[in-house]
Amino acid sequence: MKAVGIVVEYNPFHNGHQFHLQNSLKESGADVVIAVMSGYFLQRGEPAVVSKWARTKMALQNGVDIVIELPYAFSTQSAEIFAKGAVSILDALFCQYLCFGSEQGDIEPFINTMDHLTNKKEQYEKILKETLQKGYSYPKATSIAFEAITADHKNMIDLKKPNNILGYQYIQAIRDLKSQIKPLTIKRIGADYHDETLHKTTIASATSIRKALFEHNDLYSLGEYMPNASFQELKKYGDTFSMFHQWENYYPFFKYSILTKSLDELNEIYEMDEGLQYRLKAKILKSCSFHEFLQSVKTKRYTWTRLQRLCVHILTNTKKKEMLPASSSTQAPYLRLLGMSQKGQRYLQKIKKHLSVPIIAKLSAFDHPLLSLDVRAAHVYSLALPEPKRSSFIMKEYSTPPIRYDEMEKQFL
Amino acid sequence: MKAVGIVVEYNPFHNGHQFHLQNSLKESGADVVIAVMSGYFLQRGEPAVVSKWARTKMALQNGVDIVIELPYAFSTQSAEIFAKGAVSILDALFCQYLCFGSEQGDIEPFINTMDHLTNKKEQYEKILKETLQKGYSYPKATSIAFEAITADHKNMIDLKKPNNILGYQYIQAIRDLKSQIKPLTIKRIGADYHDETLHKTTIASATSIRKALFEHNDLYSLGEYMPNASFQELKKYGDTFSMFHQWENYYPFFKYSILTKSLDELNEIYEMDEGLQYRLKAKILKSCSFHEFLQSVKTKRYTWTRLQRLCVHILTNTKKKEMLPASSSTQAPYLRLLGMSQKGQRYLQKIKKHLSVPIIAKLSAFDHPLLSLDVRAAHVYSLALPEPKRSSFIMKEYSTPPIRYDEMEKQFL
Repeated sequence: MKAVGIVVEYNPFHNGHQFHLQNSLKESGADVVIAVMSGYFLQRGEPAVVSKWARTKMALQNGVDIVIELPYAFSTQSAEIFAKGAVSILDALFCQYLCFGSEQGDIEPFINTMDHLTNKKEQYEKILKETLQKGYSYPKATSIAFEAITADHKNMIDLKKPNNILGYQYIQAIRDLKSQIKPLTIKRIGADYHDETLHKTTIASATSIRKALFEHNDLYSLGEYMPNASFQELKKYGDTFSMFHQWENYYPFFKYSILTKSLDELNEIYEMDEGLQYRLKAKILKSCSFHEFLQSVKTKRYTWTRLQRLCVHILTNTKKKEMLPASSSTQAPYLRLLGMSQKGQRYLQKIKKHLSVPIIAKLSAFDHPLLSLDVRAAHVYSLALPEPKRSSFIMKEYSTPPIRYDEMEKQFL
Repeated sequence: MKAVGIVVEYNPFHNGHQFHLQNSLKESGADVVIAVMSGYFLQRGEPAVVSKWARTKMALQNGVDIVIELPYAFSTQSAEIFAKGAVSILDALFCQYLCFGSEQGDIEPFINTMDHLTNKKEQYEKILKETLQKGYSYPKATSIAFEAITADHKNMIDLKKPNNILGYQYIQAIRDLKSQIKPLTIKRIGADYHDETLHKTTIASATSIRKALFEHNDLYSLGEYMPNASFQELKKYGDTFSMFHQWENYYPFFKYSILTKSLDELNEIYEMDEGLQYRLKAKILKSCSFHEFLQSVKTKRYTWTRLQRLCVHILTNTKKKEMLPASSSTQAPYLRLLGMSQKGQRYLQKIKKHLSVPIIAKLSAFDHPLLSLDVRAAHVYSLALPEPKRSSFIMKEYSTPPIRYDEMEKQFL
């Protein structure tokens, strides 16, 4: 049995994800698809629209065989650490392929770009450092440095595109881990990553889907952009909890946290650059919404995404010292199993005895500092719900076993 | 000009308070009344029903001449530290009298009890220690120790009564501070401190008034238990903010705080006894309300009030080290002026040059670690309000000058 790995957020699962999923199987010729999926807080520093359990169901219904949670310590991170965590999990599960969507669509330019950057490493890093010192944001500075060392862009990737950046980091992680995984890429179609409007094609970006959900409060218009099972799952979540999760739901808690933390305590938070805490303390007083707050805090040096991730870490009270294991080690320390198809179950049975990293099916059966961050993230995520739903959401996080799906009968077991 | 000091919470101001106020003037023969009033969080570990500004107005309209805020570091404390902070403020303002309400009603038994306890100090403290070790709460243990050393209760106070306890601590503080203040007491009439029902007399306890407000949502029935001006002020607050403050408003933030703080962080909180943090962490998961939480946490060792105060400190993130100045020093370090009548203003003019402690009229003009606790308490208190009222409440805390009242024209200036 051959496995292809994919790295996903499914926030929520839409037709573009289905396209990627089906083509990952086709391109790789693999038998099973293993998805590493972010839990409650995502790479761009946002809460997921619906719980990881609902998103796991969406994944299984659409053909994913195994869903493993990307721990919080990797999921809410820059592309480099995010990719390292995800690839290390797929590697631990003996995936032979990793297939990612990209604006580029061919794997060769990724390899060329990486070789080019490796050759010019010294020069690149010197310019990058200088550009950062001028006050540019990290993505902007990498782009400027890359341009400066690159005369000919032929057969190179465009490193300004977000999915190209992630893809590049997957390949970097594969190299760094000395993994045998073979990278594949599929061209993203129909919608740009950052596209905010729903298109006439039936492929829309997750961003535009969330926009329809939150700004236009328009669930029903989403039907054509999502597989029906996903749409039903999304609808069910909305019916059960009368809401979808977004930053604004957490703003009161976020504001409370900044108001009650001392400057020193804020400085202990992961990704808090020295001095930034003064700015946050000053801006929070008058800001009536998260959006207003972030607008007022933003500077040339800090991208919206970079600041949003910092805000998530403030919200979850995640310290620099707690995140050390994620940035310093090369392997995610556990595999939290969220769901599996029957085929996925057979695959896990087969590889089980060769695993060097423990699989966690039950939260109470394992203890690890990074796992306690996942639990804390779940606690924080629950706060958007009113009581008693909040408490039962928390208890469910402890008691929910991996979701099992019969892909033949198309039903959960 | 002679001043009589009183220690108040006015939560909210009612007929019993008016009785106490008028009789304090009468008994002392003083010209001005100075009230030391708790700010946003009170001695029993609760948020005040309405803001300190609204309560200051109630005080001025009913004859108080000067309102000084009792800093958070003293207001949310056991009777001993609470009394020490309040008395030190009245002493700094050259009050000649301190007049408190008590169940006892005569000052002599207070003095007798104090002399008796001073004589039998060693024996008392030995029994107190043993009783505490048996797991009794502090109030229960003091009561048992007192009974054990006291053969004859004649001309002694009943130390099980809450206002007797406070009064006793005022006198103790006067002695400890070597203050010249002369203590006076007035018998509380009409309602017991803990009485929860509205009586047929027009004097009701603040507890029963709050009960009518929160449980029966019955503002209008309160009219006869409060001076009209206070009732109008209460009503105005309700009309402006569509709410009155109670613990349940803060429960989501409280729960968030416990969920996201580590055991070590919780152990740094003031009044957190070693080991108690495990119990709080466990009980918070399933508790859907503050009342439910406290019920489940309560043990023989910890009174409801003791735990509520701890909960306030968790809510405001107040650390043991931050409270050291309050328990170790004998003098509140500043006098935050909340309001004054014209007579009060003349009194302050007169004593101004003799003051050894600074008067704060404007928040931004002074800086002190204990004052930053007051500011934090104001921030936290604002969280019960929705945006944008929350932000404007916070800004108002910084910009509101002392309230000035013309007692002749009966109007604010």
